Amino acid sequence: MKLMRVTEPETVLSLIEKHFHPLEVEAVPLEEAGGRTLAETITPGEDVPGFNRSTVDGYAVSARETFGAGEGFPAVLECAGEVLMGHPPPAVLQPGQCFLVHTGAALPEGADAVVMVEDTEVSGSIVNCYRQVAPGENVIHRGEDLRRDEPALEKGRLLRAPELGILASLGITTVPAFRRPVAGLLSTGDELVDYHTPPGKLPPGRIRDSNSVALAYLCRQAGARVVNGGILGDSFAEFLEKSRALLKQVDFLVFSGGSSVGSRDFTARTMQELGQPGLLVEGVSIQPGKPTLLADCDGKPVLGLPGHPVSALVIFSLFGRAIIDRLAGRKAHPFKPAVRATLTRNLPSRSGRTDYVRVQLKPEGDSFTASPVFGRSGMLRTLAEADGIIVVPAGKEGLTAGETVEVYLWQ
Amino acid sequence: MKLMRVTEPETVLSLIEKHFHPLEVEAVPLEEAGGRTLAETITPGEDVPGFNRSTVDGYAVSARETFGAGEGFPAVLECAGEVLMGHPPPAVLQPGQCFLVHTGAALPEGADAVVMVEDTEVSGSIVNCYRQVAPGENVIHRGEDLRRDEPALEKGRLLRAPELGILASLGITTVPAFRRPVAGLLSTGDELVDYHTPPGKLPPGRIRDSNSVALAYLCRQAGARVVNGGILGDSFAEFLEKSRALLKQVDFLVFSGGSSVGSRDFTARTMQELGQPGLLVEGVSIQPGKPTLLADCDGKPVLGLPGHPVSALVIFSLFGRAIIDRLAGRKAHPFKPAVRATLTRNLPSRSGRTDYVRVQLKPEGDSFTASPVFGRSGMLRTLAEADGIIVVPAGKEGLTAGETVEVYLWQ
Repeated sequence: MKLMRVTEPETVLSLIEKHFHPLEVEAVPLEEAGGRTLAETITPGEDVPGFNRSTVDGYAVSARETFGAGEGFPAVLECAGEVLMGHPPPAVLQPGQCFLVHTGAALPEGADAVVMVEDTEVSGSIVNCYRQVAPGENVIHRGEDLRRDEPALEKGRLLRAPELGILASLGITTVPAFRRPVAGLLSTGDELVDYHTPPGKLPPGRIRDSNSVALAYLCRQAGARVVNGGILGDSFAEFLEKSRALLKQVDFLVFSGGSSVGSRDFTARTMQELGQPGLLVEGVSIQPGKPTLLADCDGKPVLGLPGHPVSALVIFSLFGRAIIDRLAGRKAHPFKPAVRATLTRNLPSRSGRTDYVRVQLKPEGDSFTASPVFGRSGMLRTLAEADGIIVVPAGKEGLTAGETVEVYLWQ
Repeated sequence: MKLMRVTEPETVLSLIEKHFHPLEVEAVPLEEAGGRTLAETITPGEDVPGFNRSTVDGYAVSARETFGAGEGFPAVLECAGEVLMGHPPPAVLQPGQCFLVHTGAALPEGADAVVMVEDTEVSGSIVNCYRQVAPGENVIHRGEDLRRDEPALEKGRLLRAPELGILASLGITTVPAFRRPVAGLLSTGDELVDYHTPPGKLPPGRIRDSNSVALAYLCRQAGARVVNGGILGDSFAEFLEKSRALLKQVDFLVFSGGSSVGSRDFTARTMQELGQPGLLVEGVSIQPGKPTLLADCDGKPVLGLPGHPVSALVIFSLFGRAIIDRLAGRKAHPFKPAVRATLTRNLPSRSGRTDYVRVQLKPEGDSFTASPVFGRSGMLRTLAEADGIIVVPAGKEGLTAGETVEVYLWQ
């Protein structure tokens, strides 16, 4: 048997970063921009807020006129009117006056602070202020949130809910973003039949293609569109022809299935022929998932997943996700949220190899325990029984019962 | 001023659980079932795999005939043929024979183990096996993954990638799932204008409605569809008429905006009038987000978010998300993934109130630091600058610099 040239998982991630690039920029309606990456820096062009705004319900005043006020020593002002919400102030504030304002209303010219309604007592048109306010108190100044000439959001920013809110507040309803990647899926192996084959109708020796539906969901969760190219039989000619045709339609190609050596060889040969420079990775020092393949075919990433469903999902979550993030212009997330738990048993591991271990989480008191789910990587049940995975780094020879581990949840 | 009856956040979550229920069951195409909740228990009806399957490339044997074999003492067998992938075995295994099999292929009758190809030497039709195998070695037995008569996935199960794979492997292409909730959004406040108002065209005293786009994204991320009902002016008649009409079309209504007392009062009165029993929550012991409202209007949840954008997003992520999860039949997740980080400064907090503090994460060595982002809750910029939030529980009087905190990332 040919010896595999095995690549470290971190090196695979750097190769993805180095070989592939964000797709072209397109104009996206704001309502569909969530989860996309901003392709240009946005400068507001107007101040937000566009006027000095009260942050409380109360009376707009000249702060100076309240100095020295306190319980028993009110500043006495005349209420000259009310600033209606969404309207410009009716007049300029004159000495000795105040205006009734609501949270979010504009301050009249001449006012520089707001006395909260709780700190006042009203008698006819006279307002007694029992607390002094400093200039600027209870006010958001014009441009304090966003300034017209300062970048509000930089190129490369992931558009989450807060960023969408900022764009809406600026009236930017079309957003320059990197195009959503289109992923093409191909399942390989003569043993596979379409998953639409009804229960009880499975021919002998056959199994249904279970990877394509699961992978399509993970692609869409990562923000990609999906073209399912179906099943390739174990013939090199068919592999090459169908994958060449699909690669033209998509930005990223994924081979899955093909647990037999023959099928894997066809996948590797096909990946080598689809474009230059071809195969970058012919095996990864990771368990499960060693027989992972990665190619750069004329600038398009092609990923060959290992045959077992468990390995395929683990590897896709790691490298497939990173490829989609890269094409979509999303920066590799420096922090990955996890659930902390106490490991329930020893986990031996070979040094020099990163192990991904499926675990089940159980609440215990205020925290959680993580119990490894054993079972062969060909078995789907062991995937569904797990809540997520823990990583045993290459430098460690296993983990010990009672250790605290970080569990990355399945999607 | 009327004193607010304030509810604990945990109580709000129990009220959501108690008052609202999963929507009706519908049949969903498997391709669209990701993220949905299974509404019925699935029993396979067929064994998976449907035959004894090799997990390696090698020779299918009767394990007994390899007993005693070792380096230098091979078990000598005659290769009677090959089991082709996806085909039934060509014949029954006879004493003294073996069959060439590939990973995933069916074992012939009479074979109960597979000798890996690495442990054999072939000479013509003679196979020398240099390692003994135990019965069942390198084999997944018929029904070992899923048994025809045992539940494979229970009602209430969230359909993630592994569950989709299991359903595909069973040929179940239509899935009984709880219907996706439809959320209706209403923005309130006379100061708001449509966010489509172009830059530079904002009338004086006005701001654009920035919440609806951000909330719509969070609703969709939680698996809901969205109907944007637009902006309500500060008139009780308009509030009641428009919200009554929208509530008929949706499963869940959300009011946002309305930072002024008048707008908040209209929202509360409207929520009280929309159906029985009406308001359940008129304030939450949480910061930011105290003026949160929740009503049960004839079985439909209605949420009144606080006026400030920061508070609105925090409260929606907490309670709006819980409402959508409940309607979609998703169990409240017992574990919530977070990023662990070291707090960079002291955070005082009032006991008896749960504080949600925005923080920015920065890598430092192998771990991260979390720095609080200060700024008024009316300011969008402070939301976008934060990577997520940390929670200071009601029982604690603040956190200390150097403490380890869990950061929940923004969506």
